[in-house]
Amino acid sequence: MKHYDTYFIDLDGTIYQGKNRIPAAAAFIQRLKDHGKRILYLTNNSTRTPEEVAQVLTKDHQIPTDPKDVYTSALATADYVKSIASTGQERVNVIGEWGLQKALLDRGFYLTTYQPDFVVVGMDMNATYEDFATAVLNIQRGAKFIGTNPDTNLPNERGMLPGAGSLVALVHYATQAVEPIVVGKPHALIMEMALQYTGKQVDQVLMVGDNFHTDIQAGQAVEMDTLLVYTGVSKRSEVAKESRQPTYQIDSLDEWDEENI
Amino acid sequence: MKHYDTYFIDLDGTIYQGKNRIPAAAAFIQRLKDHGKRILYLTNNSTRTPEEVAQVLTKDHQIPTDPKDVYTSALATADYVKSIASTGQERVNVIGEWGLQKALLDRGFYLTTYQPDFVVVGMDMNATYEDFATAVLNIQRGAKFIGTNPDTNLPNERGMLPGAGSLVALVHYATQAVEPIVVGKPHALIMEMALQYTGKQVDQVLMVGDNFHTDIQAGQAVEMDTLLVYTGVSKRSEVAKESRQPTYQIDSLDEWDEENI
Repeated sequence: MKHYDTYFIDLDGTIYQGKNRIPAAAAFIQRLKDHGKRILYLTNNSTRTPEEVAQVLTKDHQIPTDPKDVYTSALATADYVKSIASTGQERVNVIGEWGLQKALLDRGFYLTTYQPDFVVVGMDMNATYEDFATAVLNIQRGAKFIGTNPDTNLPNERGMLPGAGSLVALVHYATQAVEPIVVGKPHALIMEMALQYTGKQVDQVLMVGDNFHTDIQAGQAVEMDTLLVYTGVSKRSEVAKESRQPTYQIDSLDEWDEENI
Repeated sequence: MKHYDTYFIDLDGTIYQGKNRIPAAAAFIQRLKDHGKRILYLTNNSTRTPEEVAQVLTKDHQIPTDPKDVYTSALATADYVKSIASTGQERVNVIGEWGLQKALLDRGFYLTTYQPDFVVVGMDMNATYEDFATAVLNIQRGAKFIGTNPDTNLPNERGMLPGAGSLVALVHYATQAVEPIVVGKPHALIMEMALQYTGKQVDQVLMVGDNFHTDIQAGQAVEMDTLLVYTGVSKRSEVAKESRQPTYQIDSLDEWDEENI
């Protein structure tokens, strides 16, 4: 069977389940490292910085992680906006938390609500009607509308809270259906940005995740091979109905052994 | 031609244009009154109470108005929720301003975020992520999801701000597409509630408005005759393309003279 040089790996549902550990994950990561594989954690979560995500993996899940091995939809969005910004276009109106703000600041953008070139909408637990109104008015005046990811929900201990996609949906409706460019999984852009970030070709990489409709379809969007692990959102019986199947399917990362790597 | 006993009349674009007067409107209303017609102002705006709307008409537009002749989407929503509430169902989680809150309070509902029977979403300039999250969680737990109206925007001096429908869109997306029952124009419910409120039959009433996609289609939804006046949103050239035409079309309310009344 084919062997891959690089693994793009989803986090929630794949490496951990919310605050709970997935015991097979740490061993899986260790096997990959032992074989000298490049690992990039690929998450739609835009609220945390890579440093914060790496700390959670290192401290809470015993998976020592370097921040540079974490690539969030915030980073992908900031890299994407940078890639399309003309000279002098450096003003961004953000609905989003520190992870997204910092990613944009690190790439030289100004965060402003006044005459922005771009409106970027991501998850933001502090968002208010006024924030949405400002974003909508700025898009009506010509700013480009970008969404970090289309997630309907953010699962937490209170339940399924509104996710980034829900905030994007408000702005989309209020602009009378201006279509945002959405970066995160299952869209191709986050994958293209991640390939660029790692300097890898698509056939060198395996995309690993628990969610058919985000992780696997993101891989498929760029013709990347995919590994679906049934420790999270997706169920075998549902995935069986999909016309385009993942390249590989396993019940636990334990099954991805020396032979596969 | 047919004469009508009662006129349901839209406000913004028909009786005034934002803060500007429409000179023909006061004379039109006076003619209707001289002929003893029943008038009901029918607006999707849920933020103001009938008292506040009547005051604006009386003071700013020289159209003396009794609050009981104003029927907002807030009143229609409260009347509708009352009509479907089982005994003991009196808890409502509201996203909405005072006009909506008071309409519900006046009908005996409790406003609460805890274990509501209904979640009602309307225009609310003070809405926050936390309000949306609470509404979404309550709908997931089984509360019925009601929207006051589907308006994309609220036009004001700053521009086209997000309207009630935009707030509804966020909640709809975050509940993974739970369909709200939406009361306001162009939906039939506000018309049915207004007919019930006035005690009139549909063939006694003419619906007057400037917006084909809200006023006219609301009338058509209950097979009510409609009069489109081109002083607001809709344009003759666009309406000409619609498969179902308004019963009557005029450029100014001045044209609706003694003969028509």
